[in-house]
Amino acid sequence: MINSLNTAVYESKRSAIRQFSALAKATPGCVALTLGEPDFDTPSQVIEAAAVSMNAGDTHYIANNGTADLREAISKYEREVNGLDYSADEIIVTAGATEALWIAFFSMINPGDEVIIPTPAFMLYEEQVKLCRGVPVLMDTSEDGFQINADKLNSLISNKTKAIVINTPNNPTGCIYNRESLDAIHNAIKGKAIFAICDDVYRQLIYTDDYATLADYRDLRDQIMVVQSFSKPYAMTGWRMGYLMLPAEIKERVELVHQYNVVSTPAPFQKACIEALAYSPEPMLATYRKRREYVLGRLEAMGLEVQIPEGGFYAFPSIEKFGIPSAEFCTRMITEGGLACTPGSCFGTEGYIRLTYCYSDEELKEGLDRLERFISTL
Amino acid sequence: MINSLNTAVYESKRSAIRQFSALAKATPGCVALTLGEPDFDTPSQVIEAAAVSMNAGDTHYIANNGTADLREAISKYEREVNGLDYSADEIIVTAGATEALWIAFFSMINPGDEVIIPTPAFMLYEEQVKLCRGVPVLMDTSEDGFQINADKLNSLISNKTKAIVINTPNNPTGCIYNRESLDAIHNAIKGKAIFAICDDVYRQLIYTDDYATLADYRDLRDQIMVVQSFSKPYAMTGWRMGYLMLPAEIKERVELVHQYNVVSTPAPFQKACIEALAYSPEPMLATYRKRREYVLGRLEAMGLEVQIPEGGFYAFPSIEKFGIPSAEFCTRMITEGGLACTPGSCFGTEGYIRLTYCYSDEELKEGLDRLERFISTL
Repeated sequence: MINSLNTAVYESKRSAIRQFSALAKATPGCVALTLGEPDFDTPSQVIEAAAVSMNAGDTHYIANNGTADLREAISKYEREVNGLDYSADEIIVTAGATEALWIAFFSMINPGDEVIIPTPAFMLYEEQVKLCRGVPVLMDTSEDGFQINADKLNSLISNKTKAIVINTPNNPTGCIYNRESLDAIHNAIKGKAIFAICDDVYRQLIYTDDYATLADYRDLRDQIMVVQSFSKPYAMTGWRMGYLMLPAEIKERVELVHQYNVVSTPAPFQKACIEALAYSPEPMLATYRKRREYVLGRLEAMGLEVQIPEGGFYAFPSIEKFGIPSAEFCTRMITEGGLACTPGSCFGTEGYIRLTYCYSDEELKEGLDRLERFISTL
Repeated sequence: MINSLNTAVYESKRSAIRQFSALAKATPGCVALTLGEPDFDTPSQVIEAAAVSMNAGDTHYIANNGTADLREAISKYEREVNGLDYSADEIIVTAGATEALWIAFFSMINPGDEVIIPTPAFMLYEEQVKLCRGVPVLMDTSEDGFQINADKLNSLISNKTKAIVINTPNNPTGCIYNRESLDAIHNAIKGKAIFAICDDVYRQLIYTDDYATLADYRDLRDQIMVVQSFSKPYAMTGWRMGYLMLPAEIKERVELVHQYNVVSTPAPFQKACIEALAYSPEPMLATYRKRREYVLGRLEAMGLEVQIPEGGFYAFPSIEKFGIPSAEFCTRMITEGGLACTPGSCFGTEGYIRLTYCYSDEELKEGLDRLERFISTL
């Protein structure tokens, strides 16, 4: 019966990141710096809010897009903290950023539509686009300091271009798009029937004051969908809570996909997420900042080139000088060096590895010691 | 930009059931017997298990398909209680039955594929199939006592038939398919590349010992996917937890759709669902049974014909004799009679209304009094 499946599903690929994590797990004593997940538990006040809510009977159906209270709180938070003007009626609370991305792509893609994805990029985009029978158009940014080259971008736009994905801070590089990059995207899509999906899930975790997102360009409001998540800033990866902000007219359709997909997010989590929005990720951020300095210092000492990550909890050093494909490099590093990182190929870009620093100081030190030893054998 | 959306999304319809609920809400003093949701809160031991789990740090990523513990518990439950042999590796824990249905349809439908849906039926099937660019083929069962007529079924099967949806006990009729119906389906799809999606979410709530499902036909195992939910038997509608059981080979693909859709269900709910499986819905069922007797008695006294519901918490009386389309009947009943029920047209079948009896004795009495008064004016 497997031959009877949806051809797009049949051709779909398993996440290579999880495969490397699995190989690391199966290798005794291996240290893994692979998972993009805070090593903190969810703040206790968020957990408490969920428990109180459940006990108060919040176990029944809620509005498909999330409770009005939560959507109001998100609207207020985004206005006050991020300067974005989405009303509660322009927000769909989703099962994490993943579902937000899924309903965004699904809602816009007709078979054969093209979606431009600057790489390196989280592989999820490409797989979701393909599942929707769209065509991912990858745009390599590694020769442009992980910024957007206007000429390259313009050359990729065709009459089949349906959307571009903007992820800033970026997973896996940690880079933030500068004004020139954002202007380039703005100018490329302005006045055209092209959507921009702003995956800004790492914007609460930045190490600079100089942050801007395409969503700031209000003349593009009708074309923009903004993806957000509670996972990273509030250490809530396991809760599967996020949201999508989009213009009212489009929301009327996209909410149907959400409704027919999952009905709603869990009732008991609505008040917990309101509590999360009131929580400052500053203490976690301070920890990530310290680890980031440590990681950058060690990479520099090893002579590994790396673009300084300005957000998130990833570093993406170059391994080009070793002349080994990144998947082979990472496989050998697991088996010979007892350290797991994620190959750049998992993000569509050869010559790099991704190293995650949401691990304890001890794990990071041990991991970087192993990295140093491993590359000394090459 | 709305014209740039996915054409299948653009043409998608809003759930008419929710529209009638909204009209009822907007009508002062209106009694609603519309929502298919237990009026019980989730059992306290289930809530307690979730709270303990969250506080113990179960707030991080889990396996995409649900924790091994929960999938083992489901496997054991299904074997012991329902006699079904699905291993833990043949189970995907989903965001309710809705996501289970969504990933099932999405995984199998190529554009133009046909899905046979016996009606009356939960409208979700039809809308999901259309979103996947499939073609719903509705098969009216109202002239066959809501059972499957073999000739009718066979006449609808074409070389484009990808699947048939089996919902027993049925929403909205409460009817359970008899052996002849199940045999008819078995014989129609046996040996053909046609899937059967068994939506058996009401099977824990039945009022007879004589229950069988198509999933019992083990020679069809490779073709069958079984949809289940924690919502109805354990009063957990707001939790959005369900599961899909399917043969291992197919699961390998369908789990990718689940993963790219929502990543996983919430970590804090895994142990709560294990607790739910240990909970007997018998006390709730006893209450529904009493209400069912009451409702059937009242409908009979009013001279309304109704097929006796053998499961679930719905009754589907005929209103054919009033000669009014069901949507008009229900709209007038809200505005003139202060009572909301759901028109049969919402389930693809004219001449009926759906009345839900997961309401308190007082609400049921008041609602049925109003029904009696309203029809006396027609």
